[in-house]
Amino acid sequence: MKKQKIDSPLYLRVARNLENQIQQGAFRTGDQIPSVRELSRQSRVSIATVLQAYFWLENKGWIEARPKSGFYVRTPERSLNPVPAFRPARARPTPVTTSDIVVDLMQAHRGPVKVSLGTAVPGPDRLPTHQLNAIIRRLSRQDPNVSISHEHAPGDPVLRQQIARRSVMAGCNFLPQDVTITCGATEAMNLCLRVIGKPGDVIATESPTYFNVLQSIESLGMNAIEIPTDCRTGMDLDVLETVLKTHRVRGYIGITNCHNPLGYVLPDDKKRALVELLSRHNVPLIEDDICGDLAYSAQRPRLAKSFDREGLVMVCGSFSKTVSPGLRLGWVHSERFHSKVARLKMITSIASPRLSEAAVAMFLESGGYDRHVRRVRLLFEQQVNTFSQAVSKYFPEGTCVSRPSGGYVLWIELPKRVDSIALYHAALKEGISISPGPVFSASGKFRNYIRLNCGINWSDEVDRAILKIGRLCEAQLR
Amino acid sequence: MKKQKIDSPLYLRVARNLENQIQQGAFRTGDQIPSVRELSRQSRVSIATVLQAYFWLENKGWIEARPKSGFYVRTPERSLNPVPAFRPARARPTPVTTSDIVVDLMQAHRGPVKVSLGTAVPGPDRLPTHQLNAIIRRLSRQDPNVSISHEHAPGDPVLRQQIARRSVMAGCNFLPQDVTITCGATEAMNLCLRVIGKPGDVIATESPTYFNVLQSIESLGMNAIEIPTDCRTGMDLDVLETVLKTHRVRGYIGITNCHNPLGYVLPDDKKRALVELLSRHNVPLIEDDICGDLAYSAQRPRLAKSFDREGLVMVCGSFSKTVSPGLRLGWVHSERFHSKVARLKMITSIASPRLSEAAVAMFLESGGYDRHVRRVRLLFEQQVNTFSQAVSKYFPEGTCVSRPSGGYVLWIELPKRVDSIALYHAALKEGISISPGPVFSASGKFRNYIRLNCGINWSDEVDRAILKIGRLCEAQLR
Repeated sequence: MKKQKIDSPLYLRVARNLENQIQQGAFRTGDQIPSVRELSRQSRVSIATVLQAYFWLENKGWIEARPKSGFYVRTPERSLNPVPAFRPARARPTPVTTSDIVVDLMQAHRGPVKVSLGTAVPGPDRLPTHQLNAIIRRLSRQDPNVSISHEHAPGDPVLRQQIARRSVMAGCNFLPQDVTITCGATEAMNLCLRVIGKPGDVIATESPTYFNVLQSIESLGMNAIEIPTDCRTGMDLDVLETVLKTHRVRGYIGITNCHNPLGYVLPDDKKRALVELLSRHNVPLIEDDICGDLAYSAQRPRLAKSFDREGLVMVCGSFSKTVSPGLRLGWVHSERFHSKVARLKMITSIASPRLSEAAVAMFLESGGYDRHVRRVRLLFEQQVNTFSQAVSKYFPEGTCVSRPSGGYVLWIELPKRVDSIALYHAALKEGISISPGPVFSASGKFRNYIRLNCGINWSDEVDRAILKIGRLCEAQLR
Repeated sequence: MKKQKIDSPLYLRVARNLENQIQQGAFRTGDQIPSVRELSRQSRVSIATVLQAYFWLENKGWIEARPKSGFYVRTPERSLNPVPAFRPARARPTPVTTSDIVVDLMQAHRGPVKVSLGTAVPGPDRLPTHQLNAIIRRLSRQDPNVSISHEHAPGDPVLRQQIARRSVMAGCNFLPQDVTITCGATEAMNLCLRVIGKPGDVIATESPTYFNVLQSIESLGMNAIEIPTDCRTGMDLDVLETVLKTHRVRGYIGITNCHNPLGYVLPDDKKRALVELLSRHNVPLIEDDICGDLAYSAQRPRLAKSFDREGLVMVCGSFSKTVSPGLRLGWVHSERFHSKVARLKMITSIASPRLSEAAVAMFLESGGYDRHVRRVRLLFEQQVNTFSQAVSKYFPEGTCVSRPSGGYVLWIELPKRVDSIALYHAALKEGISISPGPVFSASGKFRNYIRLNCGINWSDEVDRAILKIGRLCEAQLR
């Protein structure tokens, strides 16, 4: 042993030393570790050696680099519960039947909820409240007519240009004239679905997926076909291929970046494969990129759209998760479907809120948006880690937890005997809201799953709430 | 003659004297005439006599009382062109086919239009720009979270309460819990249509009517059945009754107050008759009350809803015509359909713009809205009069002009040989937009009609624009 230790390279000794300190709690999750320069001075080793040590620790998942900030302790994988396993299932078209539960949930949330872990909304501290209000006041003074004017669909040209410019970061090259501003991404997705399909048509989507996607399909009288989806690698393309061969699928609506509720960012080659597969069957893809800017990676993930050669991909985005849900501002880039989308937008709601358009355009133009997003996505990553640890600590044995690559929701598989609907009602009685698994499925799957919102600030109250949910699960197992 | 003059009562001599002065141009349209007290002093007659004289002049249509302001000279009926005649037509279900023209129109309006007489939007001077901006800045300072929060459907409770309270003025008694806030009345009407019908269903409506109503019917795959409608007395109830007996009508969507484009306010007994007729056939009424607050009468007209005993009437309102079109704020009171409407709202756009909700709620609460509406509806009446006179002066013989009881649009029947679509294109080349008649019909009727927006301020430029349109009409007749 001693020989080996001496033989091991210097950087490895530095790294193992630090690993030890982290394991023993000298540095805790989220703590900043000494800077490269600092440690080099302290340990009297070269900067290159420290860097090599830090890369080794990063590879092992102990620490992570944050741009312009330094190195921080990550949640060690081993202290978390395992990831929910992928469970293949047969995919066949079904009418969607979740809506009643979802509406109940939403309305119940209006009740006396103290800790809101149900809806995926960030806490007020994670939104650019101060900057946004300053912009609104400035606009209202400098350009008073902005409050009383409106921009018919497709909407504010400045905002559309800003959205087009930023598409380069996602590997695309939007033209402003292909972008339509909408009252939130939910309206955008509804417009896309209405443009490509009609009642009775079959729409493929992930399972589980964001419940509003399912509700939109239902409200339009369409049927959903659920493609089994893994919380790390995304939808099963083999199943999708079989489905495309055996059913007349009118469109695919899916989340490629920061999936809600699963948290994955689809790898580039899978994005390409998805687009190619759909193109071969001439099936449009409605790409939901609502949380794309909240990926934890240093680089903004690409859009599946960037692999689209046929103009079959429509992208829906939003400022609800990053700037403010109350602005009601989303957008859709729909290229060959653009004139139909813009026209339907005009028919269903004429225009989008003008002050919201102008305020977000100014926030984007000033660079404030990018600074804000860089800051909050790190905060969300930390929060998700903290929530994951609490779940691993408090929830019964057999619980599995997702490892999101972006956004701020956790997908949790509970032991088989736990009924998440009953859990939802029990938690609500304690003033805690959660989202039960079946609302994320067209056919009521995921009975023993829940989604937790980690967008709100961590606090002792939240800690107690997660402990409480854990105990309520255990009560069901007794 | 002399004898008769001496015999006539004193008040009549005072009145005829004033009538003479108006006829000879001593007082012109829109001028204020002496106050009752003033004239009493000047003419040494009692106040009662002057009042009697003024009532006689009012009855003859020479003058009008404006609350808290005095008496003003009205546009004398005889100087205006006649009213467009009612033309009965057979009513049968048709797919709607206006959309292409309307979208062209809307998009053309984005071009270099100098005088916008096409879309029905008030000029910035007719909107409460200053008050609204002051409220927005105050909200943003006093309650910063209003910019970053949102209220799930059915929306802001304070605003819903204010809307419910004001319904008393329209003869109703809404409960706040039956009101849903929407992204403009257009969204409200789309929601109502989707709640009561499905593709293929037949919806009855006035002919002509607001083109967005027709487009909504079309975009939902429904068919319209056009009920011939008179610009003074409204829809032909006999035809509607026959239609209800011979077709399976799923709903009626109509404008009862300040009809767009016809301008009528339906008399109360006709409102009652309409509701009773529809109730007998168990057909829901979607009542579009977008301009109801802009009726010229001292008292706010009732809603047809006020005669509803079955809960079959849904009312759609808006703040786009009175406060700001850019706020994207409307509402729907839907009573027995409420839960379905609120749920569909949540599915299609989740919430309405929060800052708009809060700002309008504050404007209503403070009484500012009522003061503003009292002021602008008089201004709109004057503007409509001024526009009517210009049309009567400049348009070719045989032109007929509507006599609106509220709102700010004129419906103009041109000589039979004038093609309003060609007129539209010719006017656009001159930088003037108008709305051609066929966009107000599901089946392309009203080829020789146009609608003029009188919401913008009168100016020499507008005067020249109307002269120009008149000449373009005449060019077609040569």
